[in-house]
Formats: sequence, C-alpha cells, structure tokens
Amino acid sequence: MKILVINGPNLNLLGTREPEVYGSQTLDNLITELQNSFSNLDVAHYQSNVEGELINSLQQSDENYDGVVLNAGGYTHTSVAIRDAISGIKTPVVEVHMSNIAAREEFRQKSLIAGVCIGSIAGFGAHSYTLAIEALRTYLKKGR
Amino acid sequence: MKILVINGPNLNLLGTREPEVYGSQTLDNLITELQNSFSNLDVAHYQSNVEGELINSLQQSDENYDGVVLNAGGYTHTSVAIRDAISGIKTPVVEVHMSNIAAREEFRQKSLIAGVCIGSIAGFGAHSYTLAIEALRTYLKKGR
Amino acid sequence: MKILVINGPNLNLLGTREPEVYGSQTLDNLITELQNSFSNLDVAHYQSNVEGELINSLQQSDENYDGVVLNAGGYTHTSVAIRDAISGIKTPVVEVHMSNIAAREEFRQKSLIAGVCIGSIAGFGAHSYTLAIEALRTYLKKGR
Amino acid sequence: MKILVINGPNLNLLGTREPEVYGSQTLDNLITELQNSFSNLDVAHYQSNVEGELINSLQQSDENYDGVVLNAGGYTHTSVAIRDAISGIKTPVVEVHMSNIAAREEFRQKSLIAGVCIGSIAGFGAHSYTLAIEALRTYLKKGR
Amino acid sequence: MKILVINGPNLNLLGTREPEVYGSQTLDNLITELQNSFSNLDVAHYQSNVEGELINSLQQSDENYDGVVLNAGGYTHTSVAIRDAISGIKTPVVEVHMSNIAAREEFRQKSLIAGVCIGSIAGFGAHSYTLAIEALRTYLKKGR
Amino acid sequence: MKILVINGPNLNLLGTREPEVYGSQTLDNLITELQNSFSNLDVAHYQSNVEGELINSLQQSDENYDGVVLNAGGYTHTSVAIRDAISGIKTPVVEVHMSNIAAREEFRQKSLIAGVCIGSIAGFGAHSYTLAIEALRTYLKKGR
Amino acid sequence: MKILVINGPNLNLLGTREPEVYGSQTLDNLITELQNSFSNLDVAHYQSNVEGELINSLQQSDENYDGVVLNAGGYTHTSVAIRDAISGIKTPVVEVHMSNIAAREEFRQKSLIAGVCIGSIAGFGAHSYTLAIEALRTYLKKGR
Amino acid sequence: MKILVINGPNLNLLGTREPEVYGSQTLDNLITELQNSFSNLDVAHYQSNVEGELINSLQQSDENYDGVVLNAGGYTHTSVAIRDAISGIKTPVVEVHMSNIAAREEFRQKSLIAGVCIGSIAGFGAHSYTLAIEALRTYLKKGR
Amino acid sequence: MKILVINGPNLNLLGTREPEVYGSQTLDNLITELQNSFSNLDVAHYQSNVEGELINSLQQSDENYDGVVLNAGGYTHTSVAIRDAISGIKTPVVEVHMSNIAAREEFRQKSLIAGVCIGSIAGFGAHSYTLAIEALRTYLKKGR
Amino acid sequence: MKILVINGPNLNLLGTREPEVYGSQTLDNLITELQNSFSNLDVAHYQSNVEGELINSLQQSDENYDGVVLNAGGYTHTSVAIRDAISGIKTPVVEVHMSNIAAREEFRQKSLIAGVCIGSIAGFGAHSYTLAIEALRTYLKKGR
Amino acid sequence: MKILVINGPNLNLLGTREPEVYGSQTLDNLITELQNSFSNLDVAHYQSNVEGELINSLQQSDENYDGVVLNAGGYTHTSVAIRDAISGIKTPVVEVHMSNIAAREEFRQKSLIAGVCIGSIAGFGAHSYTLAIEALRTYLKKGR
Amino acid sequence: MKILVINGPNLNLLGTREPEVYGSQTLDNLITELQNSFSNLDVAHYQSNVEGELINSLQQSDENYDGVVLNAGGYTHTSVAIRDAISGIKTPVVEVHMSNIAAREEFRQKSLIAGVCIGSIAGFGAHSYTLAIEALRTYLKKGR
Repeated sequence: MKILVINGPNLNLLGTREPEVYGSQTLDNLITELQNSFSNLDVAHYQSNVEGELINSLQQSDENYDGVVLNAGGYTHTSVAIRDAISGIKTPVVEVHMSNIAAREEFRQKSLIAGVCIGSIAGFGAHSYTLAIEALRTYLKKGR
Repeated sequence: MKILVINGPNLNLLGTREPEVYGSQTLDNLITELQNSFSNLDVAHYQSNVEGELINSLQQSDENYDGVVLNAGGYTHTSVAIRDAISGIKTPVVEVHMSNIAAREEFRQKSLIAGVCIGSIAGFGAHSYTLAIEALRTYLKKGR
Repeated sequence: MKILVINGPNLNLLGTREPEVYGSQTLDNLITELQNSFSNLDVAHYQSNVEGELINSLQQSDENYDGVVLNAGGYTHTSVAIRDAISGIKTPVVEVHMSNIAAREEFRQKSLIAGVCIGSIAGFGAHSYTLAIEALRTYLKKGR
Repeated sequence: MKILVINGPNLNLLGTREPEVYGSQTLDNLITELQNSFSNLDVAHYQSNVEGELINSLQQSDENYDGVVLNAGGYTHTSVAIRDAISGIKTPVVEVHMSNIAAREEFRQKSLIAGVCIGSIAGFGAHSYTLAIEALRTYLKKGR
Repeated sequence: MKILVINGPNLNLLGTREPEVYGSQTLDNLITELQNSFSNLDVAHYQSNVEGELINSLQQSDENYDGVVLNAGGYTHTSVAIRDAISGIKTPVVEVHMSNIAAREEFRQKSLIAGVCIGSIAGFGAHSYTLAIEALRTYLKKGR
Repeated sequence: MKILVINGPNLNLLGTREPEVYGSQTLDNLITELQNSFSNLDVAHYQSNVEGELINSLQQSDENYDGVVLNAGGYTHTSVAIRDAISGIKTPVVEVHMSNIAAREEFRQKSLIAGVCIGSIAGFGAHSYTLAIEALRTYLKKGR
Repeated sequence: MKILVINGPNLNLLGTREPEVYGSQTLDNLITELQNSFSNLDVAHYQSNVEGELINSLQQSDENYDGVVLNAGGYTHTSVAIRDAISGIKTPVVEVHMSNIAAREEFRQKSLIAGVCIGSIAGFGAHSYTLAIEALRTYLKKGR
Repeated sequence: MKILVINGPNLNLLGTREPEVYGSQTLDNLITELQNSFSNLDVAHYQSNVEGELINSLQQSDENYDGVVLNAGGYTHTSVAIRDAISGIKTPVVEVHMSNIAAREEFRQKSLIAGVCIGSIAGFGAHSYTLAIEALRTYLKKGR
Repeated sequence: MKILVINGPNLNLLGTREPEVYGSQTLDNLITELQNSFSNLDVAHYQSNVEGELINSLQQSDENYDGVVLNAGGYTHTSVAIRDAISGIKTPVVEVHMSNIAAREEFRQKSLIAGVCIGSIAGFGAHSYTLAIEALRTYLKKGR
Repeated sequence: MKILVINGPNLNLLGTREPEVYGSQTLDNLITELQNSFSNLDVAHYQSNVEGELINSLQQSDENYDGVVLNAGGYTHTSVAIRDAISGIKTPVVEVHMSNIAAREEFRQKSLIAGVCIGSIAGFGAHSYTLAIEALRTYLKKGR
Repeated sequence: MKILVINGPNLNLLGTREPEVYGSQTLDNLITELQNSFSNLDVAHYQSNVEGELINSLQQSDENYDGVVLNAGGYTHTSVAIRDAISGIKTPVVEVHMSNIAAREEFRQKSLIAGVCIGSIAGFGAHSYTLAIEALRTYLKKGR
Repeated sequence: MKILVINGPNLNLLGTREPEVYGSQTLDNLITELQNSFSNLDVAHYQSNVEGELINSLQQSDENYDGVVLNAGGYTHTSVAIRDAISGIKTPVVEVHMSNIAAREEFRQKSLIAGVCIGSIAGFGAHSYTLAIEALRTYLKKGR
C-alpha cells in the first residue's frame, strides 16, 4: 500500500515558524516519524508552495499511489483548481490540518476541498497526519 | 484513562436508517466494537435526542472522564448552548461525524461547536469514532 | 390506517394564548374534533415542548403509524435535528401550521423541515389539521 | 359558491412535461376531475402564461367569484405585481403548488405572494387543488 | 408639447382598491383632472397590467411624445426589461409613485428603473402625477 | 404659510463644486429664486454641515413653520438621528435631492430618512426644490 | 409580589466555570443573596439545560408569578420556541445576562427573545439579576 | 433541420437603439443575414416584448423545431417562468447575448436561464447568433 | 461619587415628542427626579444633538466624573467615533435606552457602542436611567 | 492569423477524467482536430496547471499572436491576477468552457475573467473551442 | 507650498489614550515635529470631534492650502458627507491612519473616503503623517 | 540595512501596460531609481507571476533581508497562502500599491494581506515604493 503525503504552502517552515503554535518539529522530522510509525506502508512525501505543482502532484499520484493525505495550507480556502484535481483523479484523498481551523479567522472556516475528499481531520498537530494515514489505510481496506 | 462517547439526535437509529449511507451496523454494535478495540481504556457511552440532556452529560463528564468524543448530530449546526457547555468544562472534547458534512447541504457546512473542541474528524463512517478515541488518547498523553 | 398528530412547543396553550389570533378552541378540543371527523381512521396525538421528545416521537411513529401530521411550532425554523429525524424514518410526514407563516416575521419564513416532508399546509387555522390528514390519507392510498 | 382556479405559466404543459414528476394527467383532465369532485360548487378555470393576464383575471374575479385558487407557477417567486393584485381585491386567494417547492432550488423557496393569500398548500400533486378548494370552502363558511 | 402618462399593473383599480390608502378617485378621473390642469399640453394616457405592453408603449412613445411619466407599479422593483426599454429610447421618463415606497416593505425600497429615469417623485398621492408633468415640462424647456 | 428649506452638508458649495454636474447657480441665488417664485409664501432657509445642527433646525421648525423641505446631503444615507428628529416633530417634511441618487453609487441608493418624510423628489436639479415646495403647499392644503 | 428567576443552559456551572470571568459565586449562593436582598418579595428559582423545560416553566409562571427574570443562556440566540412562549403568556419577562454579550462573538450579538421581553439588562455580573428584579418591581407597580 | 430564433424584450429596437453599442443593423436585417448564412437550414424567427408570449413560443417550438436560439433580453436575469418553459420542453435551447453581460451592471451578471440551456454564447454582437446556430447544428448532429 | 448623565439627539424633545410612547415627563423633570433619588450622589447632566459634542463631553468626563450613563439616541447605531471616545477614556460607561430597541426597526437592533460599555439597560422608560445609575454605583464599589 | 489556445488546470486530464462528462477524447487529440479544422490559421497550444505560468503565457501572446482562446479551468472563479493579465495585454481573449458552468455548483457561476474578455462560450464540449476560434476570427476581421 | 493636516474625533487624546497602542506623544508634539521636519513647507493643523466642522475645514482648505492630510478617525468608516466634501473640493487629500486598520475590527476595514483621496497610508504610527506630507509634496510637484 | 522589493503578477508589464494609468516607466527603471534614491541601503528586487514563487521569496527573505516591500498585485485580494507566508516570517513587510485600490472594482477593496503587514501605502504611483522603503527604514530604526 503506497501513500503520498502532500503538503502545501508554508508547511516547509515547520519547526521555525511560530514554534509556540506549531511546535519545534521540522517537516523532515515529522515525515520521518510518520514513515517509522507506518513501516509496513510505503509513505512518500511532496511539498510545494506552488498551487499548480500541488495539482501536478495530485494528478501524478493517480498512477503511483493508493491514497493521498493532503494539507493544502492556505489554498484550502481559495482553490477551485485543487478541488477539481481531487475530483479528477480516482485516488482517495484525506484532508488534514494541524491546527483547529474552526477556531481561527472567519475566512479559514470554509474548506473548498473538503467536499471532494473522503474525510477531514483537523486540530491534532503532527498527530493529525498519523490519524489521516490510519483513516486512509482502513478506507482502502474496508471502504467507509 | 476514561473516555465518554456522546451521541446526539438520531444516532440511535444507526443500522436501520438509510443503511446505504450509514451501513447496517447498529449503535450498540458500534460501541461494543469500540470498547473491544480499546480494551485498555474505559470507554463509556451516552446517547440522547434531547439537546439539554447532552449538555447535562457534558457537564457531568467533567468529574468522571478524561476526555469526550462527541457526535452532536443535527445540533452541531444550531446549538450555542452545547458550545457553551464544552467551553465551560475542562475535559477535552473531540468532534466526530460519520458522514463528510462538507459534501452535504449548505446549512451543514458550519459547525458551531468545532471551534471549542480540540479537533474534528469527519467522513470515515464508524471508523471516525476509532480515530477520535485514538486522537484523544494521544492528546491526553502528549498534548497537541 | 393509523395517523399520529404531533404538536410542538406552545401549542398546548391553544385556547388561552392570544385567542384573537388562534381562537378559543383548546388543543384537546381540536384533537377530539379531528378524531370525530376522521372516525374511520385511528388518529393519535402527542404534544411536547421539548425538541428531543418530538424527535423520539417521530422515531417511534415509524413502527406504529402509517403517517404523521407535524406542527413543529417554533422549532420549524431552527431544528436540523427534527429534519434529520424526518429523513431518517420511512413514515411520510405532512407539515402543518395554523397561521400563515409567510405573513409573519422574516425569521419565520424559512422552514428547515418542509423540504423533507411530503408537503405543507399553512394558514387555515384548526382546519389546517383536517386538510393535512386528508392529504395524508390520499397520499397513502395513491401516492403523489 | 363560485370558485375560480387560476393556473400560471407552463401549467398548460401538464401531462406531457416531465411526466415522471408531474404525472400523465393533463390540465383539462385535472380540472374536469375537480369539477366532478365539487359538483355542488361552481368551479371555473383560467390559465395563462402572461403575468399581466393573470393579474387581469385576479382583478375580474373580484366581481364574479367567491374565492380563488392560484398556482402562479414561476411567477410565485418574482412577481410583486401579482402580489399587489391579490392585495387589491377582496376575494380570498389560496396559494397552491403541485410539487414541494421547499425541496427544490434555493430561488424557489421564497414565495412573494404567500403573505397576502389566506394560506398555502404545496407538495400533494393534483390533490393539492382538491385540498385548496376544500380549504377555501371552509374559509368562506366559517372564516379562519 | 406632448406627454404620455403610463400606468402599470393594478393602477386601473384606483378608487375601488384600498380607498383609505389610495383615495376614492378613479384612474379615469385622475387623468381627466391632469388633462384639465395642463390644458396647454397634450396629455395622453396608457394603462396595462402586462409588462411587455408597457415596454411596447415606452418604445412607441419615442416617436409620438416629448416625455413620459411612468408609474410602473409592482414592476418597478423587478423589471430589468422595462429598465432596458427606458434606456433604449430617447424620450425622457419621470418615475412616479402615489405612495411613499420608502415607508413600505423591504422589497419595495429598491427601484430597478429609477437609475435610468431623469428623476423620481413619490409619496404625494394623485398630486405626484401633477408634479411629474411639471418636472417634465421644465426639463424639456431648460434641461436639468 | 411658512416653509423652511434646510440644506445639509456641502450644499453651501453649490455653484463652485462640480459645476458640470450641479450647474453654476449658487445656493444663495437658488434660494432667492425660490422666494421669488413663491412670493405668496414665507420661505426661509437654513444650511449647515453639522448633523446635530440640522437636527436642532428640524426641532425648532416645529413651532415656527408649517412645513420643511430637506436636502440632507450625505447624511441622507447614514443618519438615524435625523430620521428620529423628523419622526419626533409634527411638521411635515419633504425629502429633496438635486441629482438622481438612484443613478449613483450603491451606498447612495438607500435613504434612511425617506420613510419618515411625506414624500421624496430627486433628480431635477434646482427645480427639485420648486417641486418640493409645490408638493408641500398642496399637502398642507389638501392632505395626500 | 411573586417573581420567578429562570436560568437556562450552563448557568448551573456558576462558580466552577471560568471563575476569572463569572466569579466564584455559585448559582445557589447568587439566588440566596437575591432572596435576601428582596426579602419583601417572593423570589423563586428554576434552572434547566433543556430548552423545552424552560418553555414549560415560562408557561407555568403565567398562573403562579407576577413577573419573570430570564437568563436563557445560549438559547437566547437560537430559540424561536422560547420567544413564542414569552409572547404566549401574559406575565412580563425581563431578559438578563451576566456578561456583556455585545462584546463577545458575532453570533451572540443578536437576541431572538429581547424583542418580546419588556426590557433587557446585560453586563453587570450577578448584579444584573438584582437590577432586573428592581426593574420588574417598578414595572409591575407603574408600568413603563 | 428547423431552428427557431427567439428574441425577447427591446431587441426589436436593434439598429436605432444605442447604435454605438449595438451597431446600425436592424433586427430584420440580422435575421435575413442569418437565414442566408444557413441556407441549408430552416431558420424561423419570433420576437416579443411580452414574457408570457416568449413562453408560448418556447412551448410551441417543441412540436415544430429541432432547436431554439434564445436571447431573452432583460428577462434573462429575472424570469423563473422562462426557465421553467425551457426545462419543460424537449427541444434544446442555446442562450445568446450580443453584449458581454459579464462586463455590465451587477444585476446582469446572473442568468436565471443559462443553467437549463445546453450552453451560452455572449459578447460577439450579431455574430453571437451565427455561433449559436452553429453550436446547435453540431449539438443536434453529435451531442455534446 | 460623581456621575454624568449624557443624552444624545432628540432626547431634549422628551415630554412633547410622541407622549404615548415616551410619556409626558420632560427631560428636565426626569433629571431632577434622578437627582432626588440619588441625593447622596453628585448627578450632572449634559444633552446635545451634535455627535462631536457628545464626544467632547465623554472626553471631559474622564477628569471630572467617576462614571457615565449614556443614551446616545440615534448615534447608537451609526457612530464609530463615539465608540472610540468610550474606548479612549478610563471612566466606565453604562449604555441606556428608554425603549426596547430590540422590538423596533432592524437598523436599531445593532448597537455599535454596547461592546465598549460595561453593560446595557433598555426598555424600562425613565426607570432605565435609575437602574443605570444603580448599576454604575455598584460597579464602582465592587467591580463586575 | 495566429491563434493561441491556452488551457488551465486539470484540462491535461481530458480523456481519462470523468469520461462520462468530458468524453474520451484527449487534449492532444482535441488540439489536433482544431488545427485540422482551421488549417488556414496558425493554431498553437499551451497548457499549465500553474496560475502564474498562464499569466506568463498570456503576456507573451501579446507579441506573438493575434488572439487567444482561454479555458482557465478552476482559476476562472478565483483569479484576479489572470483577469489583470488579460486587461494588461492588447490581444483579444475569448473565454471558453466545455461544460455549462451555469448548471454546476454556486461557486462556479461567477467568472472573474469574463468581464475583460471580448466574449464567452460555454457548454458545448470540445465544440466550444471551435466556436471560440470562429468567434475570434470574425472579431479580428470585423470587430464586434 | 501650504499643507493642512486635519485630525478627526478622539485624536486630541493622543498621548493619554491607550499609550501602549498610540505611544505617549501628544498631538501638539506630533504636529510640532512635523512642522520641524518640513520646515520649508507651511504646515497648518486643525482638529475637531465634530463631523461637520471637519467638512467646514475641508471646504475652507480649497482656497488656502495646496493639499490636505486627513485622519478622519472613526468618521472614516461612516461618513458619506466627508466623502462628498473631499469630492467637492479641488485640493488633493491624502488619507492617513496611525494604526493598521486592516488588522482591527471588521467595521474598520472599509474606508468610505479612501476612494476619493489620491492615496492612503496606514499603520506607521506618527510616521504615517510624515509619509503623507512627503506623498503630497511629490504629488503636487509631479502628479501621480 | 537590506531591503527586498517583491513585485507580484503583471507588474513586469509596467511601462507597456495601460501607460495612461501606470505611466511609461518600466519596472527595471523604477527599481533603478529606487536604488539610486536609497544609495545607502541595499535594495534588491524580485518579480514573479507565480503565487508560490512569491511565497518562496518571502520565506527566503527571512534570512537575507531586514525588511520587505510587497506589491502582491492581483493576489492581494485572493491569497491566504501569501498572508500565511507573511505571518510565518519575522521580517517586517510593508504592503504597497501604485493605484488607489479603494477607487476601483468592489473585489479590489479588500486586501487579505494588509492585516499581517506592518502598514499599507496605496495610490501614489511609483512614489508609493519610495514611501514604503522610507516607512520600513523608520520602522526598523524606531518601531511603530
């Protein structure tokens, strides 16, 4: 079972950006821990700040992966194009956020992409990713 | 570690209601499976169709449980009173939904309670509950 | 053919509340007249001011009645949970109002439950109930 | 007692238009059945696709009929002028719809004319007209 | 100087409709009085309840009249087509209302046609028409 | 018959401000012409840029004048306090605008004060004032 | 003179919930102090987290009390049913809040029930109740 | 292959109305050119300023034409009734506009009828009609 | 303890304006009664119809008074500047209204200043002022 | 005459994505067919999923092409930057969509770029492109 | 070159009001520093809390100054009258704010006057004024 | 002191795009002039049409520059991701626009990024950049 974790804009700053909010763990470290936790899965990772490259990555996942975990960062709230990419592929996608977006600014409370994902997980910090892979694994085995 | 799962209105109909959507598993069966999966935790359950009784249950959990998993059903989108109950207690609460509410009617796309929970999980059917308990256990151990 | 008439909040005040608007007939009297008018049907009645108990009643009707006539009172405009209860049962439900809600305050002009009922009748005072039972009887015989 | 049934735009297509929704009964047939059901009443009928002619018909009813049953079709949601015609006459008007407009598109969920009718009936197919005449007859006899 | 007074839907009911609001003067009488007051002008009159016939009348005025006084009744608030007719002709148009529309329902407080008229007069009963012809006469002589 | 013309903010600039829009006539000149046109009336004038002084003037008119013509300028769209002053006095007030406010910016298309005036006249330049006094004179003689 | 103080959802948590906001005084203590302050009045108390039970209590007050002081908690902003109960009884009701709801979240800034109470008092902590009883006493003696 | 071109309100003014915008070609001339360009098709034409007559024309096209090209003019943005007529017939309809409605007033930017047409073409002046017939011909031959 | 009562626009009309609503008591009389009721306090009064003078008065109160009771009249709903004045001073301010603003027009239901006052009292006629001074006195003694 | 066809995000998936909606024709094939159909024109093609690269391509077209056909995909509804690029170049741009966007989700019904294109064509599948080039060719020859 | 700095409501409190936000510099001191910094310019100053006096000052500047720097304080968001004053004079006006209004309450994020100023500067504390004079000087020399 | 000027989409067209609006100065020339004006500072420049590359540039500035001047062009109004990049770095950012965006289309009047910048400058053409660097220099020396 092959899983691709896709991280969108500014998530490459993890560990240095607002550590009191996001913790001091870097993105590389977070991914390594995920790979260790799910050693029986093939967990790959892609990060970009460019909306179109995230779309490229989602499109390419369709041939290479069984499922995608996507943290689209700020594009979550503004990108019809990423939404269309998710709809256009067959690979199931789980939406994930480290922070509880419902407790933040008004414009962050509507996700344009959640409706075309199989489900969403938000608010549990780095652990959100672990839960998302767990959710995807179960979904791929048993469906909803 | 003691966890209370609270289910709101109409979740008692699980198994008979729209089985093509919610599956044929009953609520009793779902809870039993959860308790079996987390045999090292103390997982209790409460269901009511009455908004005020859900508030009572949340308030009482403050003394008796370490964490709450809450599926507030239709009250999710309309209840300031349940939101206030969550704010008023110290016990951490995880919001959970079986369906992907972002893919449903407009009035279901805003949760009034998500902002005062530690996080939210939606869309994974019965597995949403498993993930929520898992999220809560990690949160209680390590924080976010 | 068994019909359950469900009345929501404040309808127990009929006869004493604003008699210039709602007439001087009490709820008991109204139900008795309905039962007399439809003596060949089995017409039962339930009233509660508690939203959750109305949901309980709707759920229980699924096994015991062929159809429901529902005046949800003030919950008409605010209750996603009652809407979900109607969707969740197989028994057809007719929405009824004594007053013409379209001629009243702005917040009363949107019914959250009408869309999941088979139809709605409003504005004819106590006669609205008679029409609703008549509508339900025809629907149960012939469909729409 | 003389009743005028007024049908607005596209209702002349009944029986050929979307028969899976509206049934295969033609408008002529529907009116004939109504006249048979209420053989002790004088039930006349008028249909037009022209908003202004519906207004003409409403105005003229004031001298010739005791009550009006009005299905204003698509004008229901857009016509202040028909609303004003109803307000401007003394004859009581009952609003009727075959489909459950609350279960359809957003722009169909607000009726501009309901507030000046004595009441509304929607969702019961051809039977909606029967109920409306019944409602009108009772209203003319006893008031609301 | 030739002036056409155009009256829209329901204004033919003047004198019988809500006389406590609109007075007991009929439309014919009102027009006769206007013609008497402005005996040195050629004041013609057209009334229709049909939106498209009001458009026909506006279009034809372009060749036959120097100015138009228009009370579009209920179409004031809903008709882009009448607005386009006014824009499409060269004849100046003055908007007039007998009642003070700003003191009535919310949906009556926006005029779709005022922006393409040279000006608007509202609230002075039958005298509104006199003022409108006076305004038009001055405009035709001196411009704004 | 004593009439007070009240002009609000920036109307003192008439003649020098945007003469292509408002013409080259000064406010003094406009008032003098009005007084000449209505030589059998007592026409007084007050202008201020201060909202509260306009309120003072409206309040004082109650004892000294039979009617008021008010051009509240930019306060038209923002002042609940001027609206309250008009409601609070017995003297009838006619709202007047030189430009056609319906053809201008969105925020100018709602008048907060029109609903408490007896009527409104807009779009006829300086002639709007003449029409307004004419309207007031007729209203004071005959009512609406 | 008999007064009923009704407290809605989560007010039973007073003293333990967010003491830095609500103080450390318990609800029992607050009521006792009120009763001592108004020893010449008969001050009773009812608290419930259930919306429908608050409605029951309001209805029953009509026979047993001269006036009601109501803190509807989170239902203040969402309950048409409680509004209807207040309208349906003759007993005057004063709305009260401990916190200044105008300084809190957007959804807390509209009260659905204030419009049918005789008046509202908010922001003075426990003292709000004292002022409300004082207001009610004066109202019952002298009217508004 | 028989095509009906239907033109709505004010399009009869083509050539004389705002020639700097719409050109100096008359409607008759435009239709003749269309018929010449598509000499192998049977291209008929209907124009009316009356909403209901446009509906009549759409309904009648169902028996007589293979496709309709519709420029509903100002009714585009306000007519649920025309929308219903298009839904109610089997003949495919292409929406057409001469001007680029997206570059005009806010109220012109929403088409109520586009969603029930097979497609829309706007902004190419008289050429929009040629493209629409071309689109219809291809659609009738091959589908979308 | 020195208290300043500030009254905004149109409150100087008390006693003569709409006496059926506001009673026949003049403002002078109301203030005298307040001073008598609170003879152990130093109660001063200021009234102006000018927004900026109310701001001046609020600013000056900071040095001369312990607390302010403010009825900002129509400016309540439109003045960011008065809000800023209240925020900018240290003196606590209590908002007061004689009428129940929640039962009046839509535009009166949002107070721009309530959020920066310590609390609000509305609906109790002249008695609202008594309650406000009482509230302020307690606040100054004990805090909230 | 040189034409550039620009395709935005996810249009590279044509043929494999939702073939029941978009058909089984690939983008390469579609472009080849276009080039064959317009063999007397020079038809080039560019596709990218990156918003900024679409802007680059639009800017470069200004020197190299006579006209642009643009399907901006999901960026149609969200990109002010693409709108600005179209405004900033002299080359005329025609907006094109394969599906009828007016029949899809609410957020797809507003195009941010249509207002700065010369016109729009939507709903005719691959044929939309043929019509767009045809529209552009005529526009370049004759203007609108 | 003569510049007038106009400060609106509450800016006279600088130095004493919320010094942690606005610093401890008084308005007099700020103006003196500005005059020293621009010793080759003639920098005058006016402050008022009264909206109409700010309008008076803007009008008078037209004859006496080459440019105006305006901090309209709370009137920025509510005053159509000040907007009209700026439009009505020929002197260029630069809008200035000490705080970053985009980071504050929702109602502070729309400036009614910015659109008629030549430009806006916000967020740089006292330095905003220096920048504004600099901007004005360059504008007066070179245009935009 | 090292400053990075970042220009977003379409600003590379300066000098050729709409020269009557933006002047005939190219971006290269503008930057050279800035560098000459601030010869004692180290002023670097970056331009891209790609949203994600602007984010990359902002992130990298954190290590290499003391401050950033950002003109985000069309992304100003739509990019949560750029907002997050600004929040995520420690380098202070000044928002700059050449045109007065408050005087343009509605969708340009809200900046999503202003709230996380230290301040904003708009409307002064190329001079806006000079003012922004000046603002940044002062901020870096003295704070706000």
